[in-house]
This record gives sequence, structure tokens and C-alpha cells, in this order.
Amino acid sequence: MFRAAELGQTVTKKEYKERAPEIRRQLLEAQVLLGRTADFSVMIDFAGVDGAGKGSTVNLLNSWMDTRLIATNSYGLASETDEHKPKFWRYWRDLPGKGQMALNLRARYSQPFLDRVYERTTNLEYLAELKRIQTFERMLADDGMLILKFWMHLSSEEQEQRLEALQSDPETAWRVSDRDWEHWKMYTQFIETAERTITETNTEFAPWHIIEGADKNHRILTVSEIILDALTTRLKAHGHEPTPELLIDEEATDVEDPIPEPPDRHVTVFSTLDMESSLTKTEYRNQLAAQQRRIHLLNRKAIEQNRSSVVVVEGPDAGGKGGAIRRILPTLDARNYRVLQYGAPTDEEASRHYLWRFWRHLQRAGHLTIFDRSWYGRVLVERIEGFASETEWKRAYAEINDFEDQLIEHGTILVKYWLHITPEEQLSRFEARQRTPHKRWKITPEDWRNRGKWYEYETAAHDMIKYTSTHVSPWEIIPANDKNYARVKVLERFGDYLEAALQDSSES
Amino acid sequence: MFRAAELGQTVTKKEYKERAPEIRRQLLEAQVLLGRTADFSVMIDFAGVDGAGKGSTVNLLNSWMDTRLIATNSYGLASETDEHKPKFWRYWRDLPGKGQMALNLRARYSQPFLDRVYERTTNLEYLAELKRIQTFERMLADDGMLILKFWMHLSSEEQEQRLEALQSDPETAWRVSDRDWEHWKMYTQFIETAERTITETNTEFAPWHIIEGADKNHRILTVSEIILDALTTRLKAHGHEPTPELLIDEEATDVEDPIPEPPDRHVTVFSTLDMESSLTKTEYRNQLAAQQRRIHLLNRKAIEQNRSSVVVVEGPDAGGKGGAIRRILPTLDARNYRVLQYGAPTDEEASRHYLWRFWRHLQRAGHLTIFDRSWYGRVLVERIEGFASETEWKRAYAEINDFEDQLIEHGTILVKYWLHITPEEQLSRFEARQRTPHKRWKITPEDWRNRGKWYEYETAAHDMIKYTSTHVSPWEIIPANDKNYARVKVLERFGDYLEAALQDSSES
Repeated sequence: MFRAAELGQTVTKKEYKERAPEIRRQLLEAQVLLGRTADFSVMIDFAGVDGAGKGSTVNLLNSWMDTRLIATNSYGLASETDEHKPKFWRYWRDLPGKGQMALNLRARYSQPFLDRVYERTTNLEYLAELKRIQTFERMLADDGMLILKFWMHLSSEEQEQRLEALQSDPETAWRVSDRDWEHWKMYTQFIETAERTITETNTEFAPWHIIEGADKNHRILTVSEIILDALTTRLKAHGHEPTPELLIDEEATDVEDPIPEPPDRHVTVFSTLDMESSLTKTEYRNQLAAQQRRIHLLNRKAIEQNRSSVVVVEGPDAGGKGGAIRRILPTLDARNYRVLQYGAPTDEEASRHYLWRFWRHLQRAGHLTIFDRSWYGRVLVERIEGFASETEWKRAYAEINDFEDQLIEHGTILVKYWLHITPEEQLSRFEARQRTPHKRWKITPEDWRNRGKWYEYETAAHDMIKYTSTHVSPWEIIPANDKNYARVKVLERFGDYLEAALQDSSES
Repeated sequence: MFRAAELGQTVTKKEYKERAPEIRRQLLEAQVLLGRTADFSVMIDFAGVDGAGKGSTVNLLNSWMDTRLIATNSYGLASETDEHKPKFWRYWRDLPGKGQMALNLRARYSQPFLDRVYERTTNLEYLAELKRIQTFERMLADDGMLILKFWMHLSSEEQEQRLEALQSDPETAWRVSDRDWEHWKMYTQFIETAERTITETNTEFAPWHIIEGADKNHRILTVSEIILDALTTRLKAHGHEPTPELLIDEEATDVEDPIPEPPDRHVTVFSTLDMESSLTKTEYRNQLAAQQRRIHLLNRKAIEQNRSSVVVVEGPDAGGKGGAIRRILPTLDARNYRVLQYGAPTDEEASRHYLWRFWRHLQRAGHLTIFDRSWYGRVLVERIEGFASETEWKRAYAEINDFEDQLIEHGTILVKYWLHITPEEQLSRFEARQRTPHKRWKITPEDWRNRGKWYEYETAAHDMIKYTSTHVSPWEIIPANDKNYARVKVLERFGDYLEAALQDSSES
């Protein structure tokens, strides 16, 4: 079965650079259309051989599409809570709504699969588990969900090479565990079980796609094309056709720069920042790698100590929030983090206190949650746009401080970043986005309108920092005109927080 | 402070019968208006001396109002999951949305209060906890929530008498535990802490009301009047005035009985029921008490063994579902059960598979959930009204069987009731409801329309039972023309299920 995925297919860097932007753009178009029409939901599972690129593919898809409509779910062993509910409870809990997409790692197949490989279950028991999974998938597919499953494959030799390559480089050696080698030695059992799994659960409503995982470029393009094809076909069946126009908002092009002159005596906490801070490419590479390694180790320690972290990233549009967050992710264990970006509130959310939608997503101990924008929206956009009254946003400072106090008292490591850029830098980034087809959608008329209120936003951010930068939970204000500098600084400060917190707790 | 609640105030049975229906009707009007306008949410806390009637007051309020808009939350010790989140997480999780009402038992005050009484915390620590609670309440009140808090009081003598009375009657002796007597011996510490608590947290935005708890009639009328007054005042402040017309749907009055003749050869699983089954008043009283005692003991055993139960109650409109459920509740520990009744789906629910809204409310091990109507709506009302296509409702039988299989495999004790009545009995109950002011709202034009489809519903119920009454999860079909008979039968069968399941597990 897996011979066809050991052909040594590769895609050259040149070919990748030619093809990727187009696929990326089309994928995004399809996703935007899916979100707007909300006719069905999408669930994509990634399984396969360790080291075959499941996590990196998921990270890449997240970076290509609009993350407000994607949830990445990674399931480890069932937690004590999970065990209080029927096995499938956590998969039901995380089902995407219509218009949304779930990317799943180590999901419903994982535990039964490992139980079978380690012969903790019989073949018949395994078949019964697969039958239950199939019933689940059929039920969702019948309800209109688009389900895709990828098996990322490596040959035994490729897996060995991959592990050895990682291990021999001091920069990446930490990524290889004893368990990885144990699994590699059991390669045959893994593959036999995989064959059985795929044979039994490869249905027209939830098909498996076997992907040759060895070459990163090939893998990414193949996966994206399959998703694109399935998504487009389904959209067309619903009478919708993705078009490039979906990503182009005419109102957002040919806009005259709306930025006003700074008001008199406009002195903020940002006035003292050294906006020239930067790193050379070499400095960046070295420091990035060093900080990532450091955070990886600290994060493992945090998991062992059952400490949670909450990372808040705020800053002007195009300030580089997403890029900084993506530099943290590779250092983490996919089972233990979640990146949250909030779109419009659902009716359940709109009907409650504005902090409710953040409380509801707090994760269990030992987990990391990154908020790409956060509850601070209350004193930024909601203040400026008048969504919150003056009384409301003024009292929000105290409400937020109280919320964060509760996190910290509970033992959560809280880090808050403000990535600051100059208005000139923002303009040049907006213009660069408009020139790049797959980034053009990121610029909306709203971004331009917000830009017109640059100094109001700066004042709001200044007040926010003044009132919510407390001794226990200060703001990290980072000059971000140079992306390299900002990214390394974000990692470095995160490492400092982790170090201090984990130190403290081992002393106490 | 509590002298004023030891005046020996009583309300005679006669006075209660005169005043209660009017308060009940007005309370319901106000609640219906709250639900329709959805301008704010309501949170009501019940705390106080053991035996002062907290639980029975909550049960009564549930029986007086529309339970689709009420959530009763009872918090015990924090579970392992709760401890993975900041302390207030579970109170945030359960916040009512606008238009909804939460009735809380043993909520945010309970644990800090007991910690202080038992001197596990210092006075200063307790004050800090109270300050946090006050911040929480202020935040919600600022957001528009109506918050009321009741302290149900008994004097030391009254508490002693209450405990002794319960203990001396073999029917109720089980209700008194060693812990109750331990608390009674600590009466002074309790009262001192209560005074401190109320003094520190009695605010204009979340006031305490001290209620004299000894006389049931007095207690209930006082609590209801306070709620009614606060609710009406707030509604008026929002420009709404409750009126009797809110509960009267003209379309539902003076309706000609729409029931058609039964179709030819209409033979169903209900045709063989002995619809004359009944109990005399004495039989009812004796058997009810015996069954309630039996279930109380079995339920305690289920909690000890960490077994969950799910009880589904279905049947025609006015079939007596609510009345039967209310006869189960007094046997249960308020911390361990929840009654769920589903209104229109929220947008998060409507956007997912129809079973999602039931999965999401599955409770942790050791808990009991009663569904007053359930997932079977898919093959009943959704089938008849065409909300589900024929393909959809036909495949729902298998989907539901699979769902229930998962519950049972997980160790859940599942009991499903169909309370059957004849069309003649339904008509007489509809008419009786129309004659009773505080019940009139229960009859809607939809009920009459459904009645017009009596035989279609009977056929759908017949099919449902045919396809979903499985060996592991049969339907209990109960002739319910006589309410007494049905209520006792529901309890008796529930007891049988519990007994069988708990027997099994102790053997295995």
C-alpha cells in the first residue's frame, strides 16, 4: 500500500516558489468563500509516521489561511476530565461549525492505533474501534461535513535518516526522543496497522490520502492541492465558485493614505522606543535558533510542572503579530498549545459579559494559549469605534487587571506583548501586502480606516499600558519596525518569563 | 443581624393558597417578558443554614417558571477539571445569557465560607476572598445583570427541631447526615461568619435578602415577591411592563378540537397499553414515599461508585413529563443532577450536527442528567414538521442508537421513558390548563396544531420505539392517563435500572 508513497518524489525550490503562491491564493479564496457562505464545515485529519511532517504541514496551512476560521486540535492522552465522558466527547466538543475548518492532530485514530501497535488490544477489538470511528465520520459527512484524512508516510530508511539528521545537529537534537527511536524499531508493526486502518476506513465520505512525506515541498504542495480540490468541488456543488475577486476589496485599493498629522504634544510611552532596533540576518538566524531551543526546553519543564502559560500579542495592524507567533510554535509540543484569534462574537458570546469568551477558552494546567489580539480589544478598538461606552472601557482596566490577577494567582505564566511600529512602516507593509496576491486579502477598508485613527489608537494603547502594566503583569513593549529584531525579542522575553516562573516554583 | 429573621413569621395554608397563584402568574409574566426582550440576565444565589429550604425553594421556582430559560447550578467541591482552571472559571462558564436566569446553590460563597468556619483560613484571607467575589458581582452588574442573593435563616432551635423531625420519621431519616449535626453544633461559628459575609458583600448591585426559613409558605412567598419586585422594577427601567396578556395567546383559546379520526388499521405499540392503570391516593402516597427513599439510597450508591445516569423523558404534550421529573428531584443530591430542557438552538448549535447540543451537556462521572425531551425530537417533531428530511430522520435511528451505545459503554445508566396518554385525556388536560391562570401559558397554538397531528405523532413514536428500543437501552412505555400511576411507575422503573446497574458493577 505504501510503495506508491516511496517514489522519492521531490519538488525543487524553484518549482515550489513558482507553484506555492498560486495554490496559497486559491486555497485562501476557497476558505474565504466557505466562511462567507457557511454551507458546510471541514475537518482534516493528519496522521502518519513520526517525522513525516504532520505538525509542520498544519503550521503551514495555518499561516496560509485565515486563522479566525481554523481551529487546530491536537489530542494527547485523554485527560482525567475526558475520561469522565464517553471517549468521543472531546471530538464532539471540538466539531467545527459551518464555514469553519478543523485541523486535527493525534485525533480519534491515534489512541486505538497505538493500542493495537503495542498489542494492548486484539485485532477484533481494533476493528470494532475503527467501525465506531467510521460511524462517527459517516454521521458528520451525512450532515454535510467535508472530511479529509492524510496519512503522511516515510519509508523506514527515510525515517531513520530523518531522526539521525535531527539528532546530529546540536540545534535540533532535542527534537528526537527515545520514544521516536522505539517507534522506528517497531516500523513494521506501525505500517501493518496503518494498512489495516486505511483499508478499513477509506470511505467515499472520509477518504484517506497517502502522502509521501520525505520532501517538504512535495508534501506541502500535494496536501494543499488535495484540500483545494476537495474544497472547490464541494463549494461548486453548493453553487459557489471561488474567484480572485473574493480577496480583493476595491475599497481597500487605491486608497489615499488617511493618516493625519500627530496632534500637539502627542507624547506616549512609545515615544522613547528605539525604533531603529534591528538585527542582521546572521544575528537573527543565530539568536532565533538559540532562543527557540531555550524555549523548547523551558516549555518541556513547564509541562512537567503542570504550569500554564497565556501569551497575549497586541499591536497595530501589520505590526508583525502573526509572524512573531509563528516563530514560537515550532518550539512547542503541538498537544499543548492553542493559538486563538477572535472573530465576531457568536450569539452565545454576545449575550454575555465581554470577558466570557476568553474565560471559556482557558485551557487546563500544563497548556499554553496564545491570544492573537485579546480582551484588550475592549480598551482599544471598542473604545475608538464606540462599541464600548466611555464608562465601559474605563472600568475595563480594573476588570482586566482582576482577570489577569486570577490567572497569575492560579499559577499561570502571563506574558503580554505590544509590538510597536511607526506609521511609515505600517504604510510600507500595507503597500507590500497589496502587491502580493496571496496577502492582498489581509488589507481591508477597515485597516485603512483604523490607520486614519493612528494617533487615537496610540493614545488608547498608551492608556492601556499605563493602567494595565502592573508589577505582576507588565507589558513588554517591543519596537517592531525590524521584524527580525521583534521576533527574537519576543522569544527572548518569553524565555525570561518562563525561566523566572519555573525557577520560582522549584524554589518554593 | 438575624434577629429579624427569627420572628416566627408564618403563612397559613389558606393564605398561601390565596396568594401563591397570583405571585406565580406575575413571576411567570415577568420571566416571559425577560426572555422575549432579552435585555439583561438574572443570577440568583441561595445560601444559608442547612435545612432552611434552599433546595426546595429552587425546585419550586423551577416548577413555577419556564425551565427552558432557567439553569440551576449547584457547585460542590471543585472537581479535578475545575482545579485546572482559576477558581472562578466554573462560575464564568455557567453565566446566564441575556433573557436567561441562573439559580445557584453552593456557589462562589460556599467554599470560602466553609473554609472560614472551619478556620482553614484567617479572617484577612476571608475578607480578600469576599473582595474578589464582590469584584465579580460588580463586573456582572455593571454589564447589566440583575443579581439577587438570599440567605435562608433558621435559629439554632429551629435547625435542631428540623433535624430531629426529619430524623424521627423513618420516611425522611435518610436526609439527615452526621455532617448536618456537626454543622448544627457549630451554629455560632456559622452565624458569625454569615454576619461577616453579608455585611461585607451586601451591595446595591448585589444585595442580600435574609429570609426566615422555618415556615415553608412564608419562605416561598417572601422569596418570590422579592424576585418579582426586582425583576419587574428592572424590566420597567428598560421600558417593559409585564401584563397578563403576555401569557394568553388568543390563538390558543376558543380553539375547536382539531383531532382527526384515527386512520384505518392504526395499530401501534401503544394499542396494547392498559390505559386504565391507576393508583388510589393512599396507594400513591405510600408507594411514592417508598420509591423515593429507594432511589435516594441507590443514587447515593451511584455517586459513590462514580456512575452517571441519563434519564430521557418523552411523550405527548401534557403527558405529565414535568410532573414525573419533579417527583424524582427530591430524592437527589442537588450537587449531582441537572434537568435539561432545550429551546431553540443557539447559532453555535444550529451550525453543527443535531447531536452536538446534547453531547456538549454530558456531565462528568457520578452525575445525573434528566432530559425533558431530548435528541428524539429528531424523529418526532422534526420528522412530522419536516425540519428534518426523510433521509435525515430515517438515518437518525442508527445515529441515536450509536450515541446511546457510547453512553452505555462508558458506564452510563440510561433510562428512557415514553409517558403515553389518550387523546381524550390530553384534551381534558389542555382545557384544565386553559382554566388555570398560571398554567394557561403552557398551551400554545403549536400545542393545538400538534394535537391535530395526533396520529402522525403516534406513528412516529411507534417507529421510534421500534427502531431505538434495543436490548441495552429499551424504552419504558408508561400509561400515564393517571398521573399518580405514571409518577410511581417512573420512579419504580428508575429504581430497577439503578439496582441492576449497581449490582452488575459490584459483581464485576
